[in-house]
Amino acid sequence: MSSSATMSTGTDYSDSPLLWKYPLHNLNMQDGSGSINVGVLGATGTVGQRFITLLADHPWFVLHALGASPRSAGKTYSAAVNWKQANHIPAVARDLIVKECIPEHFKDCAVVFSGLDADVAGEIEEAFRAADLAVFSNAKNYRRDPLVPLIVPYVNPSHLSILPQQQLSHSPPLTKGFIVTNANCSTTGCVIPLSALEKAFGPIESLLVTTMQAISGAGYPGVPALDIMDNVIPFISGEEEKMEWEMLKILGGISKADDGSRAFDMHATHPLRVSASCNRVPVIDGHTECVSIRFAQRPPPSPQQVREALVGFTCEAQTLGCPSAPRHVVSVHEEPDRPQPRLDRYYQNGAGVSVGRIRQCQVLDIKFVVLSNNVSIGAATSSIVNAELAILKGVIQC
Amino acid sequence: MSSSATMSTGTDYSDSPLLWKYPLHNLNMQDGSGSINVGVLGATGTVGQRFITLLADHPWFVLHALGASPRSAGKTYSAAVNWKQANHIPAVARDLIVKECIPEHFKDCAVVFSGLDADVAGEIEEAFRAADLAVFSNAKNYRRDPLVPLIVPYVNPSHLSILPQQQLSHSPPLTKGFIVTNANCSTTGCVIPLSALEKAFGPIESLLVTTMQAISGAGYPGVPALDIMDNVIPFISGEEEKMEWEMLKILGGISKADDGSRAFDMHATHPLRVSASCNRVPVIDGHTECVSIRFAQRPPPSPQQVREALVGFTCEAQTLGCPSAPRHVVSVHEEPDRPQPRLDRYYQNGAGVSVGRIRQCQVLDIKFVVLSNNVSIGAATSSIVNAELAILKGVIQC
Amino acid sequence: MSSSATMSTGTDYSDSPLLWKYPLHNLNMQDGSGSINVGVLGATGTVGQRFITLLADHPWFVLHALGASPRSAGKTYSAAVNWKQANHIPAVARDLIVKECIPEHFKDCAVVFSGLDADVAGEIEEAFRAADLAVFSNAKNYRRDPLVPLIVPYVNPSHLSILPQQQLSHSPPLTKGFIVTNANCSTTGCVIPLSALEKAFGPIESLLVTTMQAISGAGYPGVPALDIMDNVIPFISGEEEKMEWEMLKILGGISKADDGSRAFDMHATHPLRVSASCNRVPVIDGHTECVSIRFAQRPPPSPQQVREALVGFTCEAQTLGCPSAPRHVVSVHEEPDRPQPRLDRYYQNGAGVSVGRIRQCQVLDIKFVVLSNNVSIGAATSSIVNAELAILKGVIQC
Amino acid sequence: MSSSATMSTGTDYSDSPLLWKYPLHNLNMQDGSGSINVGVLGATGTVGQRFITLLADHPWFVLHALGASPRSAGKTYSAAVNWKQANHIPAVARDLIVKECIPEHFKDCAVVFSGLDADVAGEIEEAFRAADLAVFSNAKNYRRDPLVPLIVPYVNPSHLSILPQQQLSHSPPLTKGFIVTNANCSTTGCVIPLSALEKAFGPIESLLVTTMQAISGAGYPGVPALDIMDNVIPFISGEEEKMEWEMLKILGGISKADDGSRAFDMHATHPLRVSASCNRVPVIDGHTECVSIRFAQRPPPSPQQVREALVGFTCEAQTLGCPSAPRHVVSVHEEPDRPQPRLDRYYQNGAGVSVGRIRQCQVLDIKFVVLSNNVSIGAATSSIVNAELAILKGVIQC
Repeated sequence: MSSSATMSTGTDYSDSPLLWKYPLHNLNMQDGSGSINVGVLGATGTVGQRFITLLADHPWFVLHALGASPRSAGKTYSAAVNWKQANHIPAVARDLIVKECIPEHFKDCAVVFSGLDADVAGEIEEAFRAADLAVFSNAKNYRRDPLVPLIVPYVNPSHLSILPQQQLSHSPPLTKGFIVTNANCSTTGCVIPLSALEKAFGPIESLLVTTMQAISGAGYPGVPALDIMDNVIPFISGEEEKMEWEMLKILGGISKADDGSRAFDMHATHPLRVSASCNRVPVIDGHTECVSIRFAQRPPPSPQQVREALVGFTCEAQTLGCPSAPRHVVSVHEEPDRPQPRLDRYYQNGAGVSVGRIRQCQVLDIKFVVLSNNVSIGAATSSIVNAELAILKGVIQC
Repeated sequence: MSSSATMSTGTDYSDSPLLWKYPLHNLNMQDGSGSINVGVLGATGTVGQRFITLLADHPWFVLHALGASPRSAGKTYSAAVNWKQANHIPAVARDLIVKECIPEHFKDCAVVFSGLDADVAGEIEEAFRAADLAVFSNAKNYRRDPLVPLIVPYVNPSHLSILPQQQLSHSPPLTKGFIVTNANCSTTGCVIPLSALEKAFGPIESLLVTTMQAISGAGYPGVPALDIMDNVIPFISGEEEKMEWEMLKILGGISKADDGSRAFDMHATHPLRVSASCNRVPVIDGHTECVSIRFAQRPPPSPQQVREALVGFTCEAQTLGCPSAPRHVVSVHEEPDRPQPRLDRYYQNGAGVSVGRIRQCQVLDIKFVVLSNNVSIGAATSSIVNAELAILKGVIQC
Repeated sequence: MSSSATMSTGTDYSDSPLLWKYPLHNLNMQDGSGSINVGVLGATGTVGQRFITLLADHPWFVLHALGASPRSAGKTYSAAVNWKQANHIPAVARDLIVKECIPEHFKDCAVVFSGLDADVAGEIEEAFRAADLAVFSNAKNYRRDPLVPLIVPYVNPSHLSILPQQQLSHSPPLTKGFIVTNANCSTTGCVIPLSALEKAFGPIESLLVTTMQAISGAGYPGVPALDIMDNVIPFISGEEEKMEWEMLKILGGISKADDGSRAFDMHATHPLRVSASCNRVPVIDGHTECVSIRFAQRPPPSPQQVREALVGFTCEAQTLGCPSAPRHVVSVHEEPDRPQPRLDRYYQNGAGVSVGRIRQCQVLDIKFVVLSNNVSIGAATSSIVNAELAILKGVIQC
Repeated sequence: MSSSATMSTGTDYSDSPLLWKYPLHNLNMQDGSGSINVGVLGATGTVGQRFITLLADHPWFVLHALGASPRSAGKTYSAAVNWKQANHIPAVARDLIVKECIPEHFKDCAVVFSGLDADVAGEIEEAFRAADLAVFSNAKNYRRDPLVPLIVPYVNPSHLSILPQQQLSHSPPLTKGFIVTNANCSTTGCVIPLSALEKAFGPIESLLVTTMQAISGAGYPGVPALDIMDNVIPFISGEEEKMEWEMLKILGGISKADDGSRAFDMHATHPLRVSASCNRVPVIDGHTECVSIRFAQRPPPSPQQVREALVGFTCEAQTLGCPSAPRHVVSVHEEPDRPQPRLDRYYQNGAGVSVGRIRQCQVLDIKFVVLSNNVSIGAATSSIVNAELAILKGVIQC
């Protein structure tokens, strides 16, 4: 594949399926049997439901164990869950017996995905890691840990290189267990095109982003209808701080000290100032973000150059052949009024992001709109591609 | 296949695909080449877009000609259309050149689907019929014509038997051309379970139905947001009259006079009184209807018997093997709060209907809720299955 | 006042204020000082907020004590409440100190309004009654009590006559304390026009009603946005049973036994069959109901006669001069597409109901649409007018 | 009155009425009779309906003539209009006979308000000015005219001083006729707090604003429900250009040449860079804007200083006593999640703006959220206060 993004007009892009629908014979799966056992923690929650939907058809992963609260444990999944997706419960999950979130029940899982709520994720994920299990978490608890990589799969898979250090720092040292986190949903959508632009034009110096975020980002029951119908809530607790901090960890590199130890440099070589304004809007799925940026490079690239860099962007998740990676990580729209959440959030099963309205900014250099599916690439899909990367890069031995 | 519907619990139903995803080798297609040319009139409109989405993957039909207004003619479809679907434009339609709605451009089409607006459908469809073309129309213009069958494909395909008479009545008589219409979207959802119940328990005597209809039923631009956001509009012009009349034609039989001529009996043998109250609600797709009925049979069937009759319902579209017919024409929900448009409208690609809350009515006999996808089975899907039926029954020779 | 309702065309009705904006000199208030102390239980909840908004400007009642949970007690109202109304907190309530719901704190209140949740209302309201306080409750707990009147103020204020018996049955007998309840919001909207019609044409025999209810009816946080946006939920727990039962108690009379004891007759003389189908729709305020009825009287009244009866309807709350009663208890619309919740719910401050689309029903006799503001006449306003009636009828001595 | 804004907490602000509810005896109205005849052009449109609602209760202005298209002319207002407001048609307008928009019909009007659509406003407003009538227009046609003031009434009433020059430039010179425009709705909300800040801290150098605009800003029928339900449209045609240009004209001063001629300086002395990103969201009324600014002054003011400047802001419309000016031109919220359109848009009848979330911006200096009612201060209210200012400043002789 020579191109990972496409320049689209209203009709010019292809409704292309994910990579996994294409021949997978070049994957270095030992036996092609497609049978890597995986578990899902928090399986009955909103993110857990999305994990299960995505994993049900996965070419490698097999749903092996589902974990939830003690209240759900012992029931079939279909009896335990209050299913809220527009698809029906996948057949493969329906009759699985839900377990408590205890490592013993997941010991046959090569990969454990966590969609746990933050109030319980800290302790449980730590216990799973201590049991030498590989945890890919959507929770926020370990994102700021200096030895835990915070990975957006199309941006910084190189941060997996911190894992040996994370394992060694554990007492006793781990051989297989670790925690990898993915980013906050609003961070993820924004950082993907920014990464493409830094790759093409060097460091970004300033970023001003205003988000219009979907209600599904708040989980279930989440936002009361009385609060959001016919309304905008110009505040999401902790969200702006997360965006402003996570952006630095993800876009920054990893520095290596003389003793071989590694550390996240937080974009320190070229300081990046980030200002976020986060809003909740009456949209079910899909975060829309208005982004303005200033490059360090003078003169800055033109809108046309920015467009070409986004269209031409490819990443390791694609070249290595992660089955859940989309053909077009960034889909660029030429129509004046796109992307829009209702029309574009399900494109490529929500695994890519859509960018439009690339134009000059009168205050910084360039502005554009980015849309990401907060429950797919903004949550479960990121964890899944991270796990695929870990397998393809040999971090996990299956 | 022994059963066409399934008794579901929250998790008990299968997210089963349409019939066409199953082996089709038992279909009496002469060569299996899957190449019956079809055309779509009104291709750029809301219903037209739905026709194109459904036909793009069809196992038999090949999109051959697209017709729209002179303003669109000559452009590629992607340039002419203001595409409003959540999927992107199918590749097969994107570069087709849109034609004017003139029979000559469609002479190679074995089937012509019409998604035309009522203000132009009358004249154009008549011209196509006169040119000996087989027209399957979603427009209302000919629904009340005494020689035009009004067919809901899971209910009254037997009404196709009027077609020879329709052809003979034309001057000059036609050999291949005819018009078949499908029903109004709100009629369709309601009449399918009613047909199953009449089959099981004999004539229904009274029907009281209150609808909560989606905005997509009004086309595009359709309902202004200022009219419907945070609102209910308890009136849809002409809708109640349509439901009250169409129900009789569809559920009624065909009488045959001594001279062999046929006529629709409008349920006259057992008069059926229908009272409809139609409302527009802020839902994008999916009509929800609260239905109460009284049977002629005394004592009437119990809710449990009604449930079983719906679960066990099968129809000719399934037994003949129409590829667009769903596995479960009627999907019966056991959960107390289903069906719901957002959760159930895309089940089986919208080709079936969902019924729930079957219970006793204190005034009539039985009441229940039915949900149908107004742009699928309520519109384009009905026309497509009607055409499939016409082929399988030999009315169209391919 | 000779007429309590007006026949309106699109423009013919008057945006008339409530009665209290008109001269009140004919009210038999002893001193005109407008100072009857009242308390509100559940003051921080959704219904409580509505009580406070309505009472802030009341010509007679003065907010004297606000009760809420122990968590709120001791704070100013403005600090305790999570205010969700489109108006701002009335100045008169802002700095009142919230109390626990203990009778002692309310002993100077001639009237206590209860907006308590059902899970605590039972015990607290009983304690207040036992302390000889007059309680007007919006909670459902005592609605089915055979000695507690269930009063819709424009319909059955005569049911106040049960109160002496309620007081005597208490041990020890009460002299001032009692409980009066108002009806469920969806019952209230429907029963008002029905009462007008029974007054004009005699008993109704059958009633079929389908509701489309606003989310505010479920309180706060109430309905999750993820459940109701772009959706209809065809089920509200317990609602249909409430409507079917309450209707009988309200529309029925009071029978008097030989020993002078009274009992509600539940419409027993002329049995009334009621069938309700209740739906939640994405509307903030205002319940819309499609109603079909059959009269005992044969032949039944024509739509035109029904219209005139509704337009001409007056009730005791008006003739006695209840200040919160609207000029038009029933506002009749002639436009084909009204009433609509967003356009009509605030007419007369939500104290009346709006009726439209009066027409023949093909199954029963007559059908129409009724809209009521569920948080005004459907809740707090009913309690307030009930209290006004109790004062004007001498049940409460101020 | 010593303060025009108030520092509010959740409960600390007063739900204060407009100034006109306070004694008006200090107004220099010759006779206090409150009878200045006014006309409304485009009276049946969305903005026209808002004009009529606001003027119906006005202490000075009397609705004298209503103009609309020839199709409406000759009908009563109630017959001509498709009324879409939540209040009912004011009694004073109901039976007025709608006229064509010809100056002759308005010759007795001291003030003519125009809510005309842009496609007809240019010609009609010019004809009215030529007939020596004073036109206050909400249309965009003359906003960029170098002799037409573009006035946000709390910001730049001093621009009225250009009017003599506008009158002289006419051929023949006018003595009473002129055109005054008000700003685009999204400009208005933003420019009011900016004006307060420039007054306190000197020139603003950079402004980055992202809007979330209500559907009512697009008029009626305006935005199709199918386009905006469950969606964000990140584009409003021409809106960003309007904001970026109008801001300069309004915030800039008027320069005076040696020959006494005046010209708008477009903020040229201290160039102001404005970058706007405009979005449509599913909100009925009320534009929410996220604003980031950089001051010329170094160091810039702190968030606390900005807050105090906004709270202490007063303007000429208040000190002169314009009856439609609010008590608090800027209402400052301390709650973390306000302002919100549904809760704050009707405060003070929509005549002021609400500001919240004042905090540091990591990229520029300060950021905050501003909410304005686009159909009140963003449209009709601005024109009305402009006319009040013109009267109080003697520009119009009544």
